[in-house]
Amino acid sequence: MIKALIFDVFGTCVDWRNSVAREVETAFPGIDSLAFADAWRGEYDPAMRRIRDGGRGYVALDDLHRENLHRVAKRFAVSAPDSLSHVWERLNPWPDVVSGLHALRRHAIIAPCSNGSIALMTRLARHAGLPWDCILGADIARDYKPKPEVYLASCAALRLPPEEVMMVAAHNDDLSAARALGLKTAFVPRPTEYGPAQDKDLVPSEEWDAIAPDFETLAKELFA
Amino acid sequence: MIKALIFDVFGTCVDWRNSVAREVETAFPGIDSLAFADAWRGEYDPAMRRIRDGGRGYVALDDLHRENLHRVAKRFAVSAPDSLSHVWERLNPWPDVVSGLHALRRHAIIAPCSNGSIALMTRLARHAGLPWDCILGADIARDYKPKPEVYLASCAALRLPPEEVMMVAAHNDDLSAARALGLKTAFVPRPTEYGPAQDKDLVPSEEWDAIAPDFETLAKELFA
Repeated sequence: MIKALIFDVFGTCVDWRNSVAREVETAFPGIDSLAFADAWRGEYDPAMRRIRDGGRGYVALDDLHRENLHRVAKRFAVSAPDSLSHVWERLNPWPDVVSGLHALRRHAIIAPCSNGSIALMTRLARHAGLPWDCILGADIARDYKPKPEVYLASCAALRLPPEEVMMVAAHNDDLSAARALGLKTAFVPRPTEYGPAQDKDLVPSEEWDAIAPDFETLAKELFA
Repeated sequence: MIKALIFDVFGTCVDWRNSVAREVETAFPGIDSLAFADAWRGEYDPAMRRIRDGGRGYVALDDLHRENLHRVAKRFAVSAPDSLSHVWERLNPWPDVVSGLHALRRHAIIAPCSNGSIALMTRLARHAGLPWDCILGADIARDYKPKPEVYLASCAALRLPPEEVMMVAAHNDDLSAARALGLKTAFVPRPTEYGPAQDKDLVPSEEWDAIAPDFETLAKELFA
């Protein structure tokens, strides 16, 4: 019995690449805005890795995004205002996400289990119309996925054992980490998250508990 | 500029007394169910006080409610199942609350800043239709109101300075604690929270930033 579904957000629920590129294009007309978005996202994992590894105390993703923005802007020879880093609060959902979340929410608690902070996830939900019941993830655990603490703290915050919680993600490694802790897993591929030439996470790497092309289908598979 | 409103929940948003009494009456027909509800609520503050004072580590309110239930049941000479303590997830809102929260939410982030856990507040929101943007409060701070940490952790989770956050409560002492930390304050009295003979929190004890008879009027006062 699935009592709660917790979601990866960047890539799984929202199209960060085109959303970021659009605002970058407005801020710096003529720049290669998709390359800028890719480079900004490219700094994401290295920045979190230092924190995961204990080389730096917990810093919210909002701050990492701002630091990374300035690093990338320098590389592109532009000067970016701090305010541009709030673009991560204005990402647009994939077309199936809002209706799919509403369908899933009729049967189970739904919450993000993202590396985004409560502040970031709250504002993003208001922008994108994501009807979360609560916000879980990195801020609750003060650490970053795929560290076990983040998944376990999210289950604990709901007072549910991991086997009653399903992690939903477009990324196989996120699901591997969740499965190792006893959570149920659902894979919803987003084959253009990284653009038309994407070569990873196109197919499931394991037999996940559910595999669906979109959130609406996932709702039907789980709760029909 | 108010960017977020954070709410006391028990008493301010929901009518715990009649909601609890109704289920107690069903569980133990013929018992003085309002007296039982009052006695159960009477154990609330003493249980939290030990934690606030450092005599016990942080324990979620769900667990305190269960412990307190058994203490009160003994006094009433009945044997209560653990499951009855989940009644706190099924409290009914005052009549103005759902529409008022929807109105407020059009202008600012709304979130509970309650002593209830994330689990409890999440399930209560689903039961009562409270359209929170996220869940803040005791679990975030791992301490209980009126300790300053709870209000400050809630503002910090939203990455807002206290002066951009308004605490909404039916209890003057909750607002005093919030004001001392720089938060804005709104008083919405609930003159029958403790029944028809209630003698406290009938009127504001200070000139709060806003005073309104219900959430719908508060929305008009703040954002007209």
